[in-house]
Amino acid sequence: MTVMELLTRARAAKSAMALADTDTKNRALLAMADALVAHESAILAANRLDMEAAKGTMSDVMLDRLALSPQRIAGMAEGIRQVAALPDPAGYVVNRVERPNGLVIERTLVPMGVIAIIYESRPNVTSDAAALALKAGSACVLRGGKEAHRSAAAIVDALWEGLDAAGLPRDALGLVEDTSRASATALMTARGYVDLLIPRGGPGLIRACVDNATVPCVETGTGICHVYVDRDADQDMALTILENAKCSRPSVCNAAEVCLVHKDIAAQFLPKFRQRMTVEREQAGLVPVELRLDPAAAALIEGTPAGPADFDTEFLDYIMAVHVVDSAEEAIAHIAAHSTGHSEAIVTASEETARSFLAQVDSAAVYWNCSTRFTDGGEFGLGCEMGISTQKLHARGPMGLQELCTFKYIIKGNGQIR
Amino acid sequence: MTVMELLTRARAAKSAMALADTDTKNRALLAMADALVAHESAILAANRLDMEAAKGTMSDVMLDRLALSPQRIAGMAEGIRQVAALPDPAGYVVNRVERPNGLVIERTLVPMGVIAIIYESRPNVTSDAAALALKAGSACVLRGGKEAHRSAAAIVDALWEGLDAAGLPRDALGLVEDTSRASATALMTARGYVDLLIPRGGPGLIRACVDNATVPCVETGTGICHVYVDRDADQDMALTILENAKCSRPSVCNAAEVCLVHKDIAAQFLPKFRQRMTVEREQAGLVPVELRLDPAAAALIEGTPAGPADFDTEFLDYIMAVHVVDSAEEAIAHIAAHSTGHSEAIVTASEETARSFLAQVDSAAVYWNCSTRFTDGGEFGLGCEMGISTQKLHARGPMGLQELCTFKYIIKGNGQIR
Repeated sequence: MTVMELLTRARAAKSAMALADTDTKNRALLAMADALVAHESAILAANRLDMEAAKGTMSDVMLDRLALSPQRIAGMAEGIRQVAALPDPAGYVVNRVERPNGLVIERTLVPMGVIAIIYESRPNVTSDAAALALKAGSACVLRGGKEAHRSAAAIVDALWEGLDAAGLPRDALGLVEDTSRASATALMTARGYVDLLIPRGGPGLIRACVDNATVPCVETGTGICHVYVDRDADQDMALTILENAKCSRPSVCNAAEVCLVHKDIAAQFLPKFRQRMTVEREQAGLVPVELRLDPAAAALIEGTPAGPADFDTEFLDYIMAVHVVDSAEEAIAHIAAHSTGHSEAIVTASEETARSFLAQVDSAAVYWNCSTRFTDGGEFGLGCEMGISTQKLHARGPMGLQELCTFKYIIKGNGQIR
Repeated sequence: MTVMELLTRARAAKSAMALADTDTKNRALLAMADALVAHESAILAANRLDMEAAKGTMSDVMLDRLALSPQRIAGMAEGIRQVAALPDPAGYVVNRVERPNGLVIERTLVPMGVIAIIYESRPNVTSDAAALALKAGSACVLRGGKEAHRSAAAIVDALWEGLDAAGLPRDALGLVEDTSRASATALMTARGYVDLLIPRGGPGLIRACVDNATVPCVETGTGICHVYVDRDADQDMALTILENAKCSRPSVCNAAEVCLVHKDIAAQFLPKFRQRMTVEREQAGLVPVELRLDPAAAALIEGTPAGPADFDTEFLDYIMAVHVVDSAEEAIAHIAAHSTGHSEAIVTASEETARSFLAQVDSAAVYWNCSTRFTDGGEFGLGCEMGISTQKLHARGPMGLQELCTFKYIIKGNGQIR
């Protein structure tokens, strides 16, 4: 089926999804979870074909992302059940006013319509994204990566049974067969058919959406996150936060990539920092962090000299760039120049400095005395997320179910005119 | 100054605006209002030059939109004072959660940064838009129409004095000198410099933004609004609502363009409708409405036969297309096919039919038993508006001060790691 055929079907199915009540949607989700487990062997067989085709063409890390197992399928099913347990965002009245003329105006969350998602090789995104879009009352069209296509198709086969079980149309969940660039472009330009496009992927995909999309789009993801250690920092706290922000899961977008240090404490702090990030980690059998140092830092500790690109790179690895700044203002200016607007933290005991940092840093999440790693739908109490938006319109930070909805004003009167 | 120079200056000024407290912003706004009045003669002189240049090139309606008078300037000043009196949206905590780990997470409205506005020939938009953007804590760059440029420049000269009076930088309010298409395109593609672009104009401008904009954009405005008179309508109420929705101000986007009538009451209702919209208005010395009728309506009353384009046209005039439908479902389907997603109304005494209409019609504002003319920031209690968004992301319906802001998450901890 072509992209336009899938979208036309999804568009026809969006009313059925929008009108489905919470119980019906949840019944579908629970049946989808059960069907995933019931289809385990078919999904694993499809995944084996994907893995065989991919061997030799991708890194072990990427192969691991592609691989499924009974545990991972059970985890995907559990993820869907968690979405079923979340409150239904559709119909939520954000704001209600009664006007002097008697009109009652309710700003009400309503389903988006058709949500398209472009993603890459992790097969679990297929079920996660479908569950979130459907719970939010929208039809969805998924376009995954070529490497994972057999797995995704087997997963969607299972999920369709869940829709059947609740009497919802299979057309509400479409999977694009063509995984070429042309199908991504078709989704980006299907004006009037796609109400929201969510690209989940690397900078190339995001850039292609910015340049080409004529449909509404929420960009997710790239995170060049900074931790600024202020002159007035509790330095032990700073060490703990930095190690956590860098090392607890380096491959994710909320991991820190850059450490900024105030010059007044650099001579005291940086040796402890190097000790913690390299020597102690090696002693504990953990991967040490490669430190890429600006000249001021390099004068104080050992490490790799930083090239200019190191302050504009999402390493997603055990690498951290280190820059000594003259002031909190310089740290804020550095972040303004180099950040992707995802997550930044300040460590300081000074409330005044913290307030200035929190007010001026223009990122989705700004932290005081805690790790950047908390930028996450679960950690923020949203229960889930479709991704982390780094744009300023509509959704910023973790996109939960509410951010997958739009709203409309519903106005009730008894003959009022203006 | 080129567009990029203006944007670079606005970008440098955005921190000063974002950090300005409510009192400072309001002081600037009140001084801007006073300066407008103080500059009255200079503004009127510039406007006379615009009017002379425009004579013979535009209709009387357009000339009237372009014209300023002492009364209109006083009205613009009063508009700015009203914005000063509104609550400051920046810093408003939309949602606050304290997580089990002790993190306090505040979803907080914050200024957008740099807002660019492309508009046409009404000079009052210059002061309205500037006041709203500045109150929302953003710098703004305005690009008005060629016909009004001398007037706009004189208005901005006055507004700058208001910024001076509060110690805010003049660079926070830029006016594009070049009013060619190239400057509009430059604003649409100034990625990284424009945080929000608001095109205020006709379908051509909106389409150009959809096709070309790489900066975040909120589309405003075209309204092909429908009033559906259901089988169970109070017909007198329907007549009153239809006349109001069509005739109280036909040139605005929330005026109704299409009347849909249920077939079961068409033979009874349409003659009364024609009487009200044509005969009675003529008798009262008011402009009668030209009715463009589908075949079923034409079989019942006199009028102009509707061409197919009449159901996809924003007349902005005393013209209304009339279509007889077999059911409320057909009315909903017609709206889905022809609406611009602005405002639609149902007139019915049936709660069941109303609920179905309100749930299914996918427009910014959906009305039950009242006029579409209420889609307006003031009428919705927002106190003002920058325009009416017909898109689904970020802002939908009247864009008030809150919709001119973005938000960020501010997270406070005491050493939490994940």
